[in-house]
Amino acid sequence: MKDTILLDDGSGGKASHNLIKDLVLPAFDNPVLNRLDDGAVVTVGEQRLAFSTDSYVVDPIFFPGGCIGDLAVNGTVNDLAMCGARPLFLSAGLIIEEGFSMQELSDVIKNMAAAAKNADVTLVTGDTKVVPKGAADKIFINTSGIGQPFANADISGTNAQPGDKIILSGSIADHGVTILTQREGLRFDAAIQSDTAPLNGMVEQMLAVSDEVHVLRDPTRGGVGTTLNEIALQSQMGIKIYEDMIPVKAAVAGLCELLGLDPLYVANEGKLLACVSARHAESVLAAVRENPFGQDACIIGEVADAFPGQVFMQTRIGGRRIVDMLTGEQLPRIC
Amino acid sequence: MKDTILLDDGSGGKASHNLIKDLVLPAFDNPVLNRLDDGAVVTVGEQRLAFSTDSYVVDPIFFPGGCIGDLAVNGTVNDLAMCGARPLFLSAGLIIEEGFSMQELSDVIKNMAAAAKNADVTLVTGDTKVVPKGAADKIFINTSGIGQPFANADISGTNAQPGDKIILSGSIADHGVTILTQREGLRFDAAIQSDTAPLNGMVEQMLAVSDEVHVLRDPTRGGVGTTLNEIALQSQMGIKIYEDMIPVKAAVAGLCELLGLDPLYVANEGKLLACVSARHAESVLAAVRENPFGQDACIIGEVADAFPGQVFMQTRIGGRRIVDMLTGEQLPRIC
Repeated sequence: MKDTILLDDGSGGKASHNLIKDLVLPAFDNPVLNRLDDGAVVTVGEQRLAFSTDSYVVDPIFFPGGCIGDLAVNGTVNDLAMCGARPLFLSAGLIIEEGFSMQELSDVIKNMAAAAKNADVTLVTGDTKVVPKGAADKIFINTSGIGQPFANADISGTNAQPGDKIILSGSIADHGVTILTQREGLRFDAAIQSDTAPLNGMVEQMLAVSDEVHVLRDPTRGGVGTTLNEIALQSQMGIKIYEDMIPVKAAVAGLCELLGLDPLYVANEGKLLACVSARHAESVLAAVRENPFGQDACIIGEVADAFPGQVFMQTRIGGRRIVDMLTGEQLPRIC
Repeated sequence: MKDTILLDDGSGGKASHNLIKDLVLPAFDNPVLNRLDDGAVVTVGEQRLAFSTDSYVVDPIFFPGGCIGDLAVNGTVNDLAMCGARPLFLSAGLIIEEGFSMQELSDVIKNMAAAAKNADVTLVTGDTKVVPKGAADKIFINTSGIGQPFANADISGTNAQPGDKIILSGSIADHGVTILTQREGLRFDAAIQSDTAPLNGMVEQMLAVSDEVHVLRDPTRGGVGTTLNEIALQSQMGIKIYEDMIPVKAAVAGLCELLGLDPLYVANEGKLLACVSARHAESVLAAVRENPFGQDACIIGEVADAFPGQVFMQTRIGGRRIVDMLTGEQLPRIC
């Protein structure tokens, strides 16, 4: 065991997974946690529930396309949606640094409220802590949430099936590149902005047309590359994707090249990946495209039972390369 | 509106209440949040649920009687219990500072797991963020939880009735004084320690003997004085307490005098206040005392409809003084 926590333990990539696997799972050992899905599905009385939590530490707290407030609401809404549930209730836990601007706090809270309204969820409980100046950086927000699983949904990272098509709901890397350019003080003519958005409406539309959606995941920290590896590992399936089918906006691709980032590993906050049976893939794709946040959706690959636990990409020039989980940490405090 | 957040905005006292009232409630305006209970009671399908959240930022993270890990588990267990619910599932959101000791993280997680087992709750979902050195202080933990309300319970800070007796489950100020002496590096012969404990078993025993428990609250930040004010305000009742009936350990009382603290405003982490009908008060008190964490419980006062929203204390020397909410912040990062 190493001596101290490193930044890449929070990357969402390989180091994060090892930390959870080595330290957390053995301590709390239970089948729900062990599934390592974006949220848990539990039963209270006769009622199945989805339950999820996420803390937000993004820096800067305001950025093109959103702020830490709507990011925190959309993030937990999406984690519940990825369980195949309709998000209903949220909690908010604020940790605020002494001296933080009241005006900015007010703006963050208004953004949270607008995002909650937009996603049709109700914030019902909360907590506020203030720590002395220097003990935290401005504001951190935890949101947790409860959702009601759709009756026809049995969705988990463990459920990918051979032959499933992989749907990606739109262009990748928008959020991560936006945050990084803000933080580095880079200025570009191209208007790029975070894709933070609630995906619960999209999921509802998808599940209305198919009961063969097997996996739903939002590729946040660690990006599409890491999320596909998680699915491959959880389901013990192989995944193949096609580089030329993955949408990346030209401005974002250019910035990634300039900054030395692989867009496959850059965080998204308003995109989902789905594994759907081949026979339902086109109708589910059409449902995704009907949603305002899914207009650029496409099928980027498929699931197979060869090479379990591995992800391959057919490159633009026809080669084939292994897509591993993110190693190291490119972008601390990206969400 | 003032320009910046001050420490006492997180005290749990008057400034915290104003912040919530002025900034948060108007933004999220809904009847569940507006009740300002320790948690929310909501309905999913046909199932009523209790839902609560709290973030823990205590400094130091290890202290006599516990650490931030068991504090975080017990705290949310207790908030659910105070809704009249049986706590079932917890989430954990960790924000860790780069460079934090792996050994300490491991100890914190083991303490969380032991506390969860002890309280008979299951941790089913979590999230870990790592922020660069200096952006947070060691570790902050958010826990959220789901509980199942007891069928005979209609418990809220709004439900105090004239004539209700006020039960306090044991001695006050142990947690706050422990943290403060640790932080100041004070050393005493007297063994004082945090009272952090799960109170769900106690609540279950209370509700087994009475359906006339009207209010349950754990007097954490802001202490017994502030919590009684919250109940008085929420229920629009007057509350009278008797100073000589409130148990304070001799060592704790001595330290409070030395440090200039009023134990009425010092945080507790394993105590509850209950408003119970007069005819059931003795049997509920007996149930509390049967619990290992309630052996020093006693009746400390009563509810009346005179002076709504106010709390009075009959002092030891026979005088009468108003007990206001905590103003200012004595003890930042107490929990």
